[in-house]
Amino acid sequence: MAEVNLRAMALSARAAGRKLALLSTDQRNATLLEIARRLDAVGEELWEANRADLEQARAEGISPALLDRSTLTPKRVAAMAQGCREVAALPDPLGQEFDGRLLPNGLRLAKRRVPLGLIAVIFESRPNVTAEISSLCLKTGNAVIMRGGRESLRTNGVLIDLIRSACEATGVPADAVQLIRSTDRALVPELLGMDDLIDLVIPRGGQGLQNLVRQYARMPVIYGGIGVCHLFVDASADIARSIPVIHNAKTQAPSVCNALDTVLVHRAVVKDLLPPMVAALNASGVKVLCDPPSLAALEGASGIQSDLVAPATEEDYGREFLSLVLSVKVVDSLDEAIAHIARYGTNHSDGILTNDYANAQRFLNEVDSAAVYVNASTRFTDGGQFGLGAEVAISTQRMHARGPLGLQELTTYKWVVQGDYHVRK
Amino acid sequence: MAEVNLRAMALSARAAGRKLALLSTDQRNATLLEIARRLDAVGEELWEANRADLEQARAEGISPALLDRSTLTPKRVAAMAQGCREVAALPDPLGQEFDGRLLPNGLRLAKRRVPLGLIAVIFESRPNVTAEISSLCLKTGNAVIMRGGRESLRTNGVLIDLIRSACEATGVPADAVQLIRSTDRALVPELLGMDDLIDLVIPRGGQGLQNLVRQYARMPVIYGGIGVCHLFVDASADIARSIPVIHNAKTQAPSVCNALDTVLVHRAVVKDLLPPMVAALNASGVKVLCDPPSLAALEGASGIQSDLVAPATEEDYGREFLSLVLSVKVVDSLDEAIAHIARYGTNHSDGILTNDYANAQRFLNEVDSAAVYVNASTRFTDGGQFGLGAEVAISTQRMHARGPLGLQELTTYKWVVQGDYHVRK
Repeated sequence: MAEVNLRAMALSARAAGRKLALLSTDQRNATLLEIARRLDAVGEELWEANRADLEQARAEGISPALLDRSTLTPKRVAAMAQGCREVAALPDPLGQEFDGRLLPNGLRLAKRRVPLGLIAVIFESRPNVTAEISSLCLKTGNAVIMRGGRESLRTNGVLIDLIRSACEATGVPADAVQLIRSTDRALVPELLGMDDLIDLVIPRGGQGLQNLVRQYARMPVIYGGIGVCHLFVDASADIARSIPVIHNAKTQAPSVCNALDTVLVHRAVVKDLLPPMVAALNASGVKVLCDPPSLAALEGASGIQSDLVAPATEEDYGREFLSLVLSVKVVDSLDEAIAHIARYGTNHSDGILTNDYANAQRFLNEVDSAAVYVNASTRFTDGGQFGLGAEVAISTQRMHARGPLGLQELTTYKWVVQGDYHVRK
Repeated sequence: MAEVNLRAMALSARAAGRKLALLSTDQRNATLLEIARRLDAVGEELWEANRADLEQARAEGISPALLDRSTLTPKRVAAMAQGCREVAALPDPLGQEFDGRLLPNGLRLAKRRVPLGLIAVIFESRPNVTAEISSLCLKTGNAVIMRGGRESLRTNGVLIDLIRSACEATGVPADAVQLIRSTDRALVPELLGMDDLIDLVIPRGGQGLQNLVRQYARMPVIYGGIGVCHLFVDASADIARSIPVIHNAKTQAPSVCNALDTVLVHRAVVKDLLPPMVAALNASGVKVLCDPPSLAALEGASGIQSDLVAPATEEDYGREFLSLVLSVKVVDSLDEAIAHIARYGTNHSDGILTNDYANAQRFLNEVDSAAVYVNASTRFTDGGQFGLGAEVAISTQRMHARGPLGLQELTTYKWVVQGDYHVRK
């Protein structure tokens, strides 16, 4: 394995980033379109690299799900190209000026949007992330160092070569986009210690990766992607219309962070809601873990599949299932629902289903999550759905940006102050 | 010394903060006005505590400057009260909604400003900071844990008691405002490890404190307050008007972070600028450290005080003087000036003095500091001067906020999404 000089890599990325940041919107977009063209025309080299990655991964016994996520197909590569074109078509956040004012003393000031600098992104599997992150960073004038999953080392290597040649062909310094071409685990702590060179780290992965970053990172980090999501069915909810929302939140994409994990049910509607809700979920293969009162409400109900209903344990609350499993708990009041979410949630996406205006407002005010919902599926927490165009991650931290991180969230600002030889009195 | 249970303190602060965050603007302002009233009526207890602090500090041999900063006077206490009234009078950032839109599918969404949560502020000396931070945090609905300088332990103790009683008297849970009443150094690393309870740390102090925080903090940090500030005098600058700007930037408040540290002089104006500039600075007691070409330009000039001119060493560039000392360097071009600032600056406040429009724009575009100036003193980088009303610190990091941190920068947002039983397609 080649030795990687991370400091040299970061220094060259910073220098390239300073140049990238000063290029025009058209130049940065031209690079994204060139990447898309090259992805559309990609040759045998990519398929060969992906086959070799998959072969090794299979030999190492990775899960079928991970194997699937690591597999490239012509359709997936076409989607990567399309993603680059879509990012190119989005408005450029750089150079936007806001909060501008003319001060009484004649100084003119405004905040101007500029790139964050050098971003490090650590992600697990899914080689399409390589193109996605590259395009978002190039668009926003940020240099980036990526570290992908070991399952995709060769595939990511071919993709980064393609992206870097597209940069060179369009006048963007290739060193603005870098990949750590090594699976050496010691490199991650080393990377996370380089707070003098790296402005932001984004870990895109599970709890293990996030804990590692929490332990070693000395620079700002945007954590995200871990969502224990709740829907509270209030006493006044429209039961018939609530069930499709719950079903959608759980089943539309069960393996992602905004998928539903726990339904809280007001005691007043337990008997009306639970039998048809569980029958609908069971029919889609969802296993429902119930507290004693909700179990009792299911007794003798029709459409329930006994192998898809089980008692919930304490550990089933505050658990991110990422699969067709859901926990249910009966609560006595809105207050109890809000307290449960405060205790077990991850401040990602939580909602209330209700027809009561005051309860809707209280829920929006008092639940402290990146996205709070009234009468909608938690699955909407997504850059595309929110109209941001594209997202690099979904933040569950409080600083800088919460929820979907779009292009604007990959920028910062500087104060631009223009005077006429002004002195402070 | 009493043992301090930091976790218990943080848990009670978080719980109090959740209540504080839901209080109305009027309630939070009423607390600030009550603090001001109590400061105006403060009794012997405060002066006694301050005398005891000063006596101990003197016995421990602290510097006269630090002793002065730690000394309370009726005038300083009145200024603290006035500060609380001014913060009360500022607009409330909480609850503001922005970036709102109605999506094509009928979902209505907006970002709503909410408190950051629990903030820890570590500061050195100056007991007025206790009232300042408390009022800014109460105004923005944030709970706060403060750790002040050992020189002000008793004084801060009396102030925090006053602030907490004012909270209780006005219906704000007193535990929202806490002070670590101990000088035990081990408490700081312990505090910095509590990333599950503390949302943000703000270290207000010198390089030593910042390094400590960098080493131990596992939560987000806003660093600030270290400014190596530059003014570049371009070939086209109006020399007569540049000198007062340089003089102001260096002498108006030499001990603060936005004070000027280095003047870069275009070679074309060295002879015209330097003799009168150095004479003016010397006349105010400023020592000027010169590179060889600027030293040569001073030969035989009138008004120069030979004890206030010396050769600069390499260490005099990139140095924050915080006193009446300034370094000077001659450069051949705007490019060289920009490169010098990129290499030696701290991305705080840097400016160009020029009458050339294109050079002014290039400087604004290419210098990557929190505040970039054309034809103005770096001393303007200040929440009050920028019209933000009050500031908790001046950030030199890139995430979340750059430059002066006002009330708005002590908040975050949540996405508020309102639907009609919407499901994602």
